[in-house]
Amino acid sequence: MARIFSGIQPSGELHIGNYLGAVKNWVRLQDTHPGAIYCVVDYHAITGTYDTAVLRARRWGMAKSLLAAGVDPSKAALFMQSDVPAHTELSWLFTTLTPLGDLERQTQFKDKSSKMESIPAGLLMYPVLQAADILLYRADSVPVGEDQVQHLELARDTARKWNAKFDQPYFPEPKPLLTPTRRIMGLDGQAKMSKSLGNTIALHETDEEIWAKIRPAVTDPQRVRKSDPGRPEVCNIFQLHKAFSSDETQTHVAQQCSTAGWGCMDCKKVLLEGMVLELTPIRRRSEELDAEPARVLDALADGAATARAIAGETMREVRGYMGLDVLAGPPAAVASA
Amino acid sequence: MARIFSGIQPSGELHIGNYLGAVKNWVRLQDTHPGAIYCVVDYHAITGTYDTAVLRARRWGMAKSLLAAGVDPSKAALFMQSDVPAHTELSWLFTTLTPLGDLERQTQFKDKSSKMESIPAGLLMYPVLQAADILLYRADSVPVGEDQVQHLELARDTARKWNAKFDQPYFPEPKPLLTPTRRIMGLDGQAKMSKSLGNTIALHETDEEIWAKIRPAVTDPQRVRKSDPGRPEVCNIFQLHKAFSSDETQTHVAQQCSTAGWGCMDCKKVLLEGMVLELTPIRRRSEELDAEPARVLDALADGAATARAIAGETMREVRGYMGLDVLAGPPAAVASA
Repeated sequence: MARIFSGIQPSGELHIGNYLGAVKNWVRLQDTHPGAIYCVVDYHAITGTYDTAVLRARRWGMAKSLLAAGVDPSKAALFMQSDVPAHTELSWLFTTLTPLGDLERQTQFKDKSSKMESIPAGLLMYPVLQAADILLYRADSVPVGEDQVQHLELARDTARKWNAKFDQPYFPEPKPLLTPTRRIMGLDGQAKMSKSLGNTIALHETDEEIWAKIRPAVTDPQRVRKSDPGRPEVCNIFQLHKAFSSDETQTHVAQQCSTAGWGCMDCKKVLLEGMVLELTPIRRRSEELDAEPARVLDALADGAATARAIAGETMREVRGYMGLDVLAGPPAAVASA
Repeated sequence: MARIFSGIQPSGELHIGNYLGAVKNWVRLQDTHPGAIYCVVDYHAITGTYDTAVLRARRWGMAKSLLAAGVDPSKAALFMQSDVPAHTELSWLFTTLTPLGDLERQTQFKDKSSKMESIPAGLLMYPVLQAADILLYRADSVPVGEDQVQHLELARDTARKWNAKFDQPYFPEPKPLLTPTRRIMGLDGQAKMSKSLGNTIALHETDEEIWAKIRPAVTDPQRVRKSDPGRPEVCNIFQLHKAFSSDETQTHVAQQCSTAGWGCMDCKKVLLEGMVLELTPIRRRSEELDAEPARVLDALADGAATARAIAGETMREVRGYMGLDVLAGPPAAVASA
């Protein structure tokens, strides 16, 4: 049975960008891949400067938001990376067999470090921790977007190197599970939806709040008057229809837009209906979790316990193969010991 | 009360070189510094190529040998580094705030990496793990030889950096406790005593085995005939007298040597007496531990439990200060979360 691992940065409560880009898939995959491992990778969130109070709030917000979005603790293990120390243990073991050159060649390291005066070692080393995140659960499938395939390559290399060095086909080479994710543009139509740009709709916003953001949102810039025909293929609002409206509605919207049958407000009202339909249950769950935060804590504690059990077994076996096992007595004499 | 931390590589059973160079001090310091932390740093032993069976045997040999040499589990915590995962956790946290340049400038890294085709990342990163080893116990004193002071410098830098970044005077800057160690030359008189050179006397060797090694050992090369006066100051055997003979005997030996009153065999017989006096109880304890290996296991388990308790407290506090604490409920709202 294929085991799935996926991690997400603790960036606070989800917005429709990271929901459609990743988390909606997590919810789908927990049914097809029982025992999925979903991790809030907070040890990856500290490689730059950050505010500790903000991080604390964002870790909580992300955990709550994942549960609200439909991650089900009875189907998948959801936990904070920092609650499972084996991530860093395995990372150290991998550090000893990862060539420095492989890390220095990573595109993301080159991009980020070229802009820095003093480069923290964590920036260079984080792909090793990322490989450990995945291989600790011997995951064979990792749902990723196109842009994350290189990160997975290092995890695959690490699995191959370890297996060769210790002569054990122990770690599977994790495969990217390329999922039908969407890159959602922000409401400004200028850049990818991102909290730091303030161009998002959070999953837990009310119908009124959503409408207040969609109403003024950018559409086809060439459609100045209502009588001008619009071009759905360049309209950001139509991209959201693709995520939230039925196929039938999408066809209808596209036709009304390109024939100037509807104005943009008509189109946005129909989008709002679709969004409300999908997001209302999520907002309700979010409100329930706000009222009962112990449910978030319980889910994280259960998830961490599940993760620790699997991780503990992996570490026991890996340490054994590496000659680092918990000693159980005097080992057989070895000539050169 | 000053807390001492010291680590030793799992190089197998002790010989008189590493006994006099480090471990004899450990035994002395456990009385003056209650609660000393003594760690077999097996996670540092895997940065190169190695044989897993040899490593396993050497980890056991070192643990047993330390106990035989007089490390007392009722006074100091003795354990395997790999049995306390917090070493790698804290190491990761420090990795995020250690500048790459500081690591690349370490003399030992430059020396070793310059001879390598492919440099494992572990070679670059091990001083960070070493800083974590020490600071995990908030040790303020580290018994080191002159040649290890630079390693400690990175630990001191790390403590300062963390304290400044998180605005807490949490970690003491560990000070080197320069101890009256001796650099013991091998019996060949050519190089430092080292197992890999085969020029050692192991702590657990019998009187006959010791004599068989001392008898042919190199002395003052200019003393060809018994009637030639010798030069104690260049004689390797006299160096061993300094370690194993009383001050009175040393004076007497030096005089007999430099006046050609004694031949080298006479001198070596007196050395043997001193060595037998010091090493016999160690050999007896080693034999007892061979007969009762459970005592080694119990000591390591107790030591690891003590270490984990201290380390757990440190990690709890450090994660708290860094915004990575185990969540206990929704944190106070933060504007930019």
